[in-house]
Amino acid sequence: MNTFGKILTLTTFGESHGPAMGGVLDGMPAGVDIDMERLQRFVDRRRTGQSVGSSTRDESDKVEILSGIWQGKTMGTPVGFVVRNDDARSADYEQLAGCYRPNHADFTWEAKYGIRDPRGGGRASARETVARVVAGGLAIQVLDFLGITVTADVEQVGDSTDHFDEIIASAVSEGDTLGGIIRCIVHGAPAGLGEPVFNKLHAQLAAAMMGIPSVHGFEYGDGFVMATKRGSEVMDVFERREDGTIGTKTNHSGGIQGGISNGEDIVMRIALKPVPTLMRDVPTVDRDGNPLTLHARGRHDVCVLSRALPIVEAMAALVLLDNYLIQKTHVL
Amino acid sequence: MNTFGKILTLTTFGESHGPAMGGVLDGMPAGVDIDMERLQRFVDRRRTGQSVGSSTRDESDKVEILSGIWQGKTMGTPVGFVVRNDDARSADYEQLAGCYRPNHADFTWEAKYGIRDPRGGGRASARETVARVVAGGLAIQVLDFLGITVTADVEQVGDSTDHFDEIIASAVSEGDTLGGIIRCIVHGAPAGLGEPVFNKLHAQLAAAMMGIPSVHGFEYGDGFVMATKRGSEVMDVFERREDGTIGTKTNHSGGIQGGISNGEDIVMRIALKPVPTLMRDVPTVDRDGNPLTLHARGRHDVCVLSRALPIVEAMAALVLLDNYLIQKTHVL
Amino acid sequence: MNTFGKILTLTTFGESHGPAMGGVLDGMPAGVDIDMERLQRFVDRRRTGQSVGSSTRDESDKVEILSGIWQGKTMGTPVGFVVRNDDARSADYEQLAGCYRPNHADFTWEAKYGIRDPRGGGRASARETVARVVAGGLAIQVLDFLGITVTADVEQVGDSTDHFDEIIASAVSEGDTLGGIIRCIVHGAPAGLGEPVFNKLHAQLAAAMMGIPSVHGFEYGDGFVMATKRGSEVMDVFERREDGTIGTKTNHSGGIQGGISNGEDIVMRIALKPVPTLMRDVPTVDRDGNPLTLHARGRHDVCVLSRALPIVEAMAALVLLDNYLIQKTHVL
Amino acid sequence: MNTFGKILTLTTFGESHGPAMGGVLDGMPAGVDIDMERLQRFVDRRRTGQSVGSSTRDESDKVEILSGIWQGKTMGTPVGFVVRNDDARSADYEQLAGCYRPNHADFTWEAKYGIRDPRGGGRASARETVARVVAGGLAIQVLDFLGITVTADVEQVGDSTDHFDEIIASAVSEGDTLGGIIRCIVHGAPAGLGEPVFNKLHAQLAAAMMGIPSVHGFEYGDGFVMATKRGSEVMDVFERREDGTIGTKTNHSGGIQGGISNGEDIVMRIALKPVPTLMRDVPTVDRDGNPLTLHARGRHDVCVLSRALPIVEAMAALVLLDNYLIQKTHVL
Repeated sequence: MNTFGKILTLTTFGESHGPAMGGVLDGMPAGVDIDMERLQRFVDRRRTGQSVGSSTRDESDKVEILSGIWQGKTMGTPVGFVVRNDDARSADYEQLAGCYRPNHADFTWEAKYGIRDPRGGGRASARETVARVVAGGLAIQVLDFLGITVTADVEQVGDSTDHFDEIIASAVSEGDTLGGIIRCIVHGAPAGLGEPVFNKLHAQLAAAMMGIPSVHGFEYGDGFVMATKRGSEVMDVFERREDGTIGTKTNHSGGIQGGISNGEDIVMRIALKPVPTLMRDVPTVDRDGNPLTLHARGRHDVCVLSRALPIVEAMAALVLLDNYLIQKTHVL
Repeated sequence: MNTFGKILTLTTFGESHGPAMGGVLDGMPAGVDIDMERLQRFVDRRRTGQSVGSSTRDESDKVEILSGIWQGKTMGTPVGFVVRNDDARSADYEQLAGCYRPNHADFTWEAKYGIRDPRGGGRASARETVARVVAGGLAIQVLDFLGITVTADVEQVGDSTDHFDEIIASAVSEGDTLGGIIRCIVHGAPAGLGEPVFNKLHAQLAAAMMGIPSVHGFEYGDGFVMATKRGSEVMDVFERREDGTIGTKTNHSGGIQGGISNGEDIVMRIALKPVPTLMRDVPTVDRDGNPLTLHARGRHDVCVLSRALPIVEAMAALVLLDNYLIQKTHVL
Repeated sequence: MNTFGKILTLTTFGESHGPAMGGVLDGMPAGVDIDMERLQRFVDRRRTGQSVGSSTRDESDKVEILSGIWQGKTMGTPVGFVVRNDDARSADYEQLAGCYRPNHADFTWEAKYGIRDPRGGGRASARETVARVVAGGLAIQVLDFLGITVTADVEQVGDSTDHFDEIIASAVSEGDTLGGIIRCIVHGAPAGLGEPVFNKLHAQLAAAMMGIPSVHGFEYGDGFVMATKRGSEVMDVFERREDGTIGTKTNHSGGIQGGISNGEDIVMRIALKPVPTLMRDVPTVDRDGNPLTLHARGRHDVCVLSRALPIVEAMAALVLLDNYLIQKTHVL
Repeated sequence: MNTFGKILTLTTFGESHGPAMGGVLDGMPAGVDIDMERLQRFVDRRRTGQSVGSSTRDESDKVEILSGIWQGKTMGTPVGFVVRNDDARSADYEQLAGCYRPNHADFTWEAKYGIRDPRGGGRASARETVARVVAGGLAIQVLDFLGITVTADVEQVGDSTDHFDEIIASAVSEGDTLGGIIRCIVHGAPAGLGEPVFNKLHAQLAAAMMGIPSVHGFEYGDGFVMATKRGSEVMDVFERREDGTIGTKTNHSGGIQGGISNGEDIVMRIALKPVPTLMRDVPTVDRDGNPLTLHARGRHDVCVLSRALPIVEAMAALVLLDNYLIQKTHVL
């Protein structure tokens, strides 16, 4: 259940305070040039300490490719990779072994497995996403070759659509945390990608985004607002363009109709809840239900929006490339 | 790509104007009592003509079980079933073969397959969902046995949260259509269901709901609103309850933490776009990009919210039961 | 677990004495011509009463296509189909409900599901294979279009490589049964099909064949005999042919090297055990372990080799077409 | 396509002369004790230089666990692991880049991917199996806890059933190679494991074994010999045993009936072709079809039977544990 995708599959592993995070990206088409420096730069965008309000945990996040790429090209074989954990301070987390942090996965994890690694959240840590960013960074390079680009940006932090640094600084000063909204746009995807029934392209994108830690909402095109409109207000009328192709005059549909891309920009919005770890005393209970107070320690983000951008791009890229490859099987 | 689920899998088939819709529900646990009359009543909730603004196409939607249930019990074998299409008037759709209806899948379907069945939208028709409702209706009976219930209701039609019949009547009179928002609640799910990384319980639910025709948005718990709050405002503090169990005082998290159910109600909201077929003249183009006017005919819904309720419940039930079964494999 | 394949998937359902057998063939490429009469002739090859020693159960095995094919062409949508059971005499099987027939699945089925349909073996009946033959018959027509043919023949009945009718007549007279060996050859498959590690082309073929009832052995190329040879004796030396292509002078490898087709004929052999139901009194036990004597009734084959030929061809065709489609995803 | 299994899944990566081989074993049940020294000993059984006729390539094959096991217990999270390649002499293989070795995957690999890593066979090298042995070694420890054991032994080398060292020494002296037959027995598996249609337990075992390099044949129970017998000769009659359980007096069926284990020993035989690399001059062609002579270099096995035993046990263990876990989902 740690595998994502159908033809292009990513399987990840790793706990926050174990020796390494890593993954296997399988199904990459053979013979594609890979720029390793570009990949590392992409992964670095997810690192901490890059912006106000992010954790001070310092990981070099050096990508180590173990297979699948040789002489700068994909070989068609699975790309195995690891990213070492070199700044794990487990002692910070010892008090956490016996209690459940609110809005974290401590309680549910124990309910599921009957056992839990309390060091830095174990596998429930957002550090797990580094493997997705490595894999997505590889997929992005293939998409580039195909003329498809994926771009995410921060649309909203908390209830604010600008002055992000100011609102984050304010939350820091109060020991509080923030969430927000990310918009992601896929440009250049050809019409025809996706599946028409269960695996609609937006259903796959929704699953990909909802699988990112802290995400609580997903919409594409006009999304929730579209539900409040009349049909006549959101109709994307077709037209013949100057180059002879057929497109739509507007894009309320967000580039997808009937679960299949229509050649317009694919537009989606992703809602992230506020970071669950406050820099305040927090009441909770231990395993026996006894009340106790949690004095937050460790190094935590106040707002993860900017760090989440490459994760969103990575997951979108994995979905798009997988569907691009699958589409090759639908017509002889 | 017409299969949904992992251990409990639903595979569907059927075009709107072909002989029948149908499916195979595989992985149903053996030995569970099935009430066929109850199943038929559940499927009937999806039929047309049940409320103001729904299509007048009249299908009996009689469920015919072909395998997997014997003497009123599941046998552990795949449940094959069909629902005949007995009121298909293909002539209504002849004008549609050569043109692309806005906000429909006509254009994208041709881009994908190079060929398209224009009769009633073919497989892109929402009639396809009848197979999901049959399968979900079976899953609901197993969930019942496990003490888990799934309930969806209409929260909003267009921009209105009440007087639904009035607003629908108004849209009908204008030849226009409406969307809206459905809320779905799962009660009684034990803690521990779902997977912590890619296949988070809410990621699976999102994919399930986004796979329903017309759905443009999904959120769980406080959803998009949660993104605007501070961490201190949405903290679900744990407490020991009178019966000795541990639960949360509030449920901003919507019953899921870290992708795994926590035993509270699972709460989600689903946004549906307005029905794409207007009862008005609509401009569009043919395959060569030549402009033409579409005079809508056929029988169409003005608002599908009430008909969508059993579809939402069905998809939620399939996800919950699948995860219930998978959870049995995680601990010896 | 009743689904076979990855991109081209077949999901089947149906019990021997239920209303119908059926299946869903999903992933068929769009736009391929299908000859329905040819399909029915292929399915008829599996029917009983076609040769000495086969059961007298008379099923018309009329294929009813419910979706996915329109105006004689595949539409890219799932092909749903049923074959009605019109000669089910359940009374013949009543004595079997309480006891375990040797070399049948009665005992194991109860161990697995805790419940069992005794009528004609339920889903454990070889009648289940009719759905595979329908699906395989469709795949064969696509393969034909691609220049790939699949042919199976009976190589051995019991310990005899000729005079099959004589040996079968002899077994009939003794109330005994026979097995044998089928050889299957795939001609025209391009080099490059299959996967190099777990899903080797021959591993997929082995699983496909071992999934056919009664099959106890599989080999490809020189098979078990190859294990007794020296490396120098089974070397398939490469040569340049007159048409400029590269091929091998011999074919000990059976058309597959490293799990991937090499363009030579793919050659495999399949061993079937004797039919388990004898026309004799047979000792067994009931559920409590009490000894009893089974007086075989019902209509049973003495030797199924000739009826198994289209099943073998069908399964081989499904594997080949699936791999043909998958191969399209490996290179951009 | 480098993933094996359904609930318990193994995904592997690595090329013979890359930095490391590795894999991810996902779906391991939580809370099981793992003995790392025992695991290493199991992996060491696959190493070279352990017996006459094996390659002199010297790899330490030290297993490095990166995740999923903490404080000696499985955590329910994916077990990531690597085994470094520390004795890769790529220079030995330079002459091979431009030509196709007979009975190797050089030609087919290029046909598939259009590109190939010639160093030590790249991913086509049998070195890839080390990852399977690591994963299988972990599965074996869980099976042990469940009372299930897996044992493989060499039944035949070439055409000889004893004096293996003598026949191997003879082949070495002639620069020739040998294959043979391995028998594998699973003891203690409960009745009820496996699936009755496509994924019969023996079909899964066949795929698992045929996926091992060099394997050309698989049979279970009486296998190919069973095909030559009459039904009356291979009937496994049921009896009530002294402990009150029901079993069979004989085991021609090899512990599986109808694709489901019956509680008897599961018995299978696997045929391996002779090692393809001879220590002789061998004729072949280059990419353009020009004839050339291959002077074998590098370090190669003459007979791999003894090294293959832990691979066979590993693959059998993965299948058995996967099916054990799946069986938990069939009955509530």
